Amino acid sequence: MTVASRPSPSRLRGGRVTLAHGGGGRAMRVLIDELFTSVFKPDSAEDQARLMTPALQQPGARLALTTDGYVVTPVEFPGGDIGKIAVCGTINDLAVGGAVPLWLSASFIIEEGCDIALLRRLVASMAREADAAGVSIVTGDTKVVEKGSCDTVFITTSGVGVIAPGDDLRAEHIRPGDVAIVNGMLGDHGATILAARGDLALSAPLQSDCRSLGHLMQAVLTACPGLRAARDATRGGLASALNEMAMAAGVSVELDESALPIRPEVRGMCEILGLDPLYLANEGALVLFVPQAEADAALAAMRSVPAGQGAAVVGRAAARGTVPVTMRSAFGGTRIVDMLVGEQLPRIC
Amino acid sequence: MTVASRPSPSRLRGGRVTLAHGGGGRAMRVLIDELFTSVFKPDSAEDQARLMTPALQQPGARLALTTDGYVVTPVEFPGGDIGKIAVCGTINDLAVGGAVPLWLSASFIIEEGCDIALLRRLVASMAREADAAGVSIVTGDTKVVEKGSCDTVFITTSGVGVIAPGDDLRAEHIRPGDVAIVNGMLGDHGATILAARGDLALSAPLQSDCRSLGHLMQAVLTACPGLRAARDATRGGLASALNEMAMAAGVSVELDESALPIRPEVRGMCEILGLDPLYLANEGALVLFVPQAEADAALAAMRSVPAGQGAAVVGRAAARGTVPVTMRSAFGGTRIVDMLVGEQLPRIC
Repeated sequence: MTVASRPSPSRLRGGRVTLAHGGGGRAMRVLIDELFTSVFKPDSAEDQARLMTPALQQPGARLALTTDGYVVTPVEFPGGDIGKIAVCGTINDLAVGGAVPLWLSASFIIEEGCDIALLRRLVASMAREADAAGVSIVTGDTKVVEKGSCDTVFITTSGVGVIAPGDDLRAEHIRPGDVAIVNGMLGDHGATILAARGDLALSAPLQSDCRSLGHLMQAVLTACPGLRAARDATRGGLASALNEMAMAAGVSVELDESALPIRPEVRGMCEILGLDPLYLANEGALVLFVPQAEADAALAAMRSVPAGQGAAVVGRAAARGTVPVTMRSAFGGTRIVDMLVGEQLPRIC
Repeated sequence: MTVASRPSPSRLRGGRVTLAHGGGGRAMRVLIDELFTSVFKPDSAEDQARLMTPALQQPGARLALTTDGYVVTPVEFPGGDIGKIAVCGTINDLAVGGAVPLWLSASFIIEEGCDIALLRRLVASMAREADAAGVSIVTGDTKVVEKGSCDTVFITTSGVGVIAPGDDLRAEHIRPGDVAIVNGMLGDHGATILAARGDLALSAPLQSDCRSLGHLMQAVLTACPGLRAARDATRGGLASALNEMAMAAGVSVELDESALPIRPEVRGMCEILGLDPLYLANEGALVLFVPQAEADAALAAMRSVPAGQGAAVVGRAAARGTVPVTMRSAFGGTRIVDMLVGEQLPRIC
């Protein structure tokens, strides 16, 4: 973003958010103007965005709408921050349904006393991610709650995209024989957050995989007309995403343990802590199912995009068995991969 | 909503939300199925809604997108609750821009330990308001944060509506001579929340004005082709809404104090506490500007709808003066009506 003239001096005194910044009056107007609209640059001063795109007016096109609240702690971590997750996560929910992500809303619930410099960094991070993904943040809201009533800042984003005529990805379309492909390393986000909390005295050269999957999904959609369904494996990890897909499709999924891309550092941390990397959260992990005949095309398309460099076949769908997901170990045995029961890590996204 | 068969027994054990309900695994699936999707009944199990309406495909139609976070305390109060506000408030942000509200997303941030029976009441309240307004809650999200990390429950809703070809309400269209009209009593919501907090030992037979303004706005749009702009006067009250509109339009607004519809109980509470009812929050108060020639048509159209029964002319726009908003008192004097400075009441919506 270019700045045409010398920026005017900040009217945000103090450097901390106060309750007045959420009160609906002058202080709120200053906060919103300086912190948000000066960066996101919405088209109108009205409290709603007014939008249109030719893609939405094609016969057969559909609008995709999705929402997610983000409460990750700490709010900044290696490889990302809550702002980046809030933009990428909602873009990804649109993308995995086959929609081209276009517009986001962003609603901030801010704790009284929150550092304004931190908010500036988060907003800049959001703008950067949105720009890179070709998405606009078009409307928003700010609330301030008393100290102790929320944890630094929560961000809820909603996303609107357009699904092209004829595209209809859904888990119910998965058939026995289809191939399961992931786009890269698993568990990096969960392991990074765990290390960033610091109270485990673990240090590892890890980064969250937080990234948007819009360009990757468009590459696959173009290369694989038979693409059945895709999910981003966030909370609950790959295991929970595959269980949901298998149950919706009425198939079983057989994973191949030796094919799962997991970093040695993540594996090591899981061994120390008794965690299973299949349940670790991700913020940029895609899992999709394609017919066997399109598997090579899908892999090639994915590897042509930065977010798909590590694409790998990790399993396949089979006729419905006794459980939705199983895994064949490197030693030849087979074990059940259940949905996450209980919670592995809270406040992960 | 009708129930076709005997409901299955609840799998939600305990009656309190736990961190596992936000973990992405089995407990979260049970919470979402029982509490949310069984009531909101989304069309698909995918994590996005897929939507279309003929109105959106008309040449010249535009999509309206808006978002708001709701953090009101207490979460239940006379005349409403945080769920009702979350639905009505976002419907109103769409409606005052001239959009027909169609679809909402709802994102819940829930404090560990939150009473599940309370959540059921809030969800039922949301479904009821959405039904009455002809709006569908089509997608959502749930996060659970540790006890003490948020205050019971925060709800962020986003709304999508359609603006018919040719409709273009915006404050910039207000002209000197235009008439300012409100739809009814001012300050009820703010006064009700204040009384409901209990620590002031005030009791008054007051109810929040929380209600949706979609049908009311459609009635005015039909009756008044010259309608300039509308706002719902929420945080910051009528004073702040009018200041924003006057500044955007480059006009001054002159209010007539004797014409302002304010209940004696609200006036009395304001006198005791040193508050100004012009700054009290509302959740169903509409202020709009029409050309003088359409004022009677607007009043008649508003009074034909329940939410507009109390419609009254409260002022008019004039050529830009020294300040954006002034008020002529019952005794003939004139005073400045500034934007809210500081905060009058926190956690009001």
